[in-house]
Amino acid sequence: MNTLQSIGYPIYFNDTLPELVNFIQQGNYSRFFILTDENTGKHCLPLIQAQVEKMDNFDIIEINAGEESKNIDFCVGVWKMLIDFGADRQSLLINLGGGVISDLGGFAASTYKRGIDFVHVPTTLLSQVDASVGGKTGIDLENIKNIIGTFTQPKAVFIEHAFLNTLPARQILSGLAEMLKHGLIADAGYWNKLKFSDLQNPSAELVHHSVAIKNKVVIEDPHEKGIRKSLNFGHTIGHAVETYSLMNDDNPLTHGEAIAIGMICESKLSVMKTGLKDDELNEIVDIIGGLYPAYEIDRPCYKTLYNIMLKDKKNQNGKINCSLLTKIGECRIDNVCTEEELYASLAYYSSL
Amino acid sequence: MNTLQSIGYPIYFNDTLPELVNFIQQGNYSRFFILTDENTGKHCLPLIQAQVEKMDNFDIIEINAGEESKNIDFCVGVWKMLIDFGADRQSLLINLGGGVISDLGGFAASTYKRGIDFVHVPTTLLSQVDASVGGKTGIDLENIKNIIGTFTQPKAVFIEHAFLNTLPARQILSGLAEMLKHGLIADAGYWNKLKFSDLQNPSAELVHHSVAIKNKVVIEDPHEKGIRKSLNFGHTIGHAVETYSLMNDDNPLTHGEAIAIGMICESKLSVMKTGLKDDELNEIVDIIGGLYPAYEIDRPCYKTLYNIMLKDKKNQNGKINCSLLTKIGECRIDNVCTEEELYASLAYYSSL
Repeated sequence: MNTLQSIGYPIYFNDTLPELVNFIQQGNYSRFFILTDENTGKHCLPLIQAQVEKMDNFDIIEINAGEESKNIDFCVGVWKMLIDFGADRQSLLINLGGGVISDLGGFAASTYKRGIDFVHVPTTLLSQVDASVGGKTGIDLENIKNIIGTFTQPKAVFIEHAFLNTLPARQILSGLAEMLKHGLIADAGYWNKLKFSDLQNPSAELVHHSVAIKNKVVIEDPHEKGIRKSLNFGHTIGHAVETYSLMNDDNPLTHGEAIAIGMICESKLSVMKTGLKDDELNEIVDIIGGLYPAYEIDRPCYKTLYNIMLKDKKNQNGKINCSLLTKIGECRIDNVCTEEELYASLAYYSSL
Repeated sequence: MNTLQSIGYPIYFNDTLPELVNFIQQGNYSRFFILTDENTGKHCLPLIQAQVEKMDNFDIIEINAGEESKNIDFCVGVWKMLIDFGADRQSLLINLGGGVISDLGGFAASTYKRGIDFVHVPTTLLSQVDASVGGKTGIDLENIKNIIGTFTQPKAVFIEHAFLNTLPARQILSGLAEMLKHGLIADAGYWNKLKFSDLQNPSAELVHHSVAIKNKVVIEDPHEKGIRKSLNFGHTIGHAVETYSLMNDDNPLTHGEAIAIGMICESKLSVMKTGLKDDELNEIVDIIGGLYPAYEIDRPCYKTLYNIMLKDKKNQNGKINCSLLTKIGECRIDNVCTEEELYASLAYYSSL
């Protein structure tokens, strides 16, 4: 499968671990560090250690798994470990894990000694098709996702399909939401292909196709001034639902489950505001509704969700900004939505 | 006096506050925030407030004065204030203060929502001739100066000579050390001019000359891969002495006082390693020794200083790297110095 070229770095597919070893050796690094959590430390790290066992200039930094770790305290912990291990500017950080690892590790690396090299080895479907490509790093603060971060590109990304075999079905579905989004915003043919695929076990080819769509968008607009905002489809409402669930539920929604809700709501907004057809909406609801469990959102929650949306960094001047569909496979950015419109879309979701 | 052009931004001199107002108005910012400490809040902020009093879209963020504030806790405090004030991506942060304000404010701004615009209004001689130009942001961690930070350029710098009138003599001398350094590493004519100037009250013209030297170096090498390292002359030992003093003295050395010691030691190293003449060393010691108080460094401290140097981010592979003079007005980078050589230079300083 083709290696993709992103903004100054390669994205490798297929049997990527030998490529990783190659990258480390050719990079002339003084030392390298592998950032993991207890899950990837158990399931994925052994595969990498088997490859690098002949090298002695590396150390492992492990943090707790889960979005709760994506904060400044864990970031300070990573910085202090790098200091204690004597990491200099010629060091490399390898982010082995899901989106929390790549976002937090990317931020820690991009600010340690004003920036050391880092690469991503995404181990979840979600991070393979989303977080690992595009150069966004970040941590959460005050319950606002990714409010602190940098735009810094990794030096390489290694997308190893074998890692997906260890994932529970719910984690596969979480990543799948972003793949569906890629089809909806940019590629109707891909959306149609997805409809007839085994979506519980997305093939390496489908993953490659999704990464290619995202990569094309971020190359065109690395700093999200324009077209890159199309990737936010489903995320204005979806992020708010995700944050709400994280704060309130014992078993909170996954990112993908929240984005699935956001995509249904924002498809309804697309019918209301940007010309999406009703039968296209119904098709989207059929596919997404068939994959993800329903989630109860009571009317008293609407105001809470709205207040979370107001703090989203995508907004300006206190107005809520959505990326909406004009049709399946096409997106229009910068649609200001009123409180009433947003509530109507939430009511539509609840009526299904 | 000429406006200087730096890496994509202007540096204004002379009656700069109307320029600042102009900049804010033309920038189409949704809001702006002024970061101060209690000193600049008292002495400098009123001058700016008088200029912007007609605008109502700004807030003030005040932190404690002093290097102790340059840490992640205060940075988190600034991030939270920006969140609470509803700062969006179209916001501007104005860093009104010395190096702590510009370094910390620059870091906070460069990472808030993955980067908002910021400008510097340096209020100390040190920050006017050093921190405000060059795009380095940073905070301290584990007693290591600027270990965390980014390379991010401000959108403009406003160097207001009037602010220097409020400074105590010791703060003027602190900035002067960097001006002397600029002459020593890059401009013998400027060094000679400084020798015969009133150094207790550096003229606007001398400040402009210093900024022009620094600006020329950073334009050539923004990310400190080569020639910019020449600005580290005096700083390998100087930073270690400064950190040591901060940890141990009730009335710690200023940055400039520490760098003055560093420049004398590293001039001695320059005689030992890069061909500086003995009479040039004597001239440097005469000028610097006549300006700054002697500081006692006992032999038992040498190892402590050396261990601090080992953690300096300028080093690679555990070797101490110094920028040294080949003659007055010329610098050579990347000179590895041994523990013994460093101790000899410290012993030379103590023998004076």
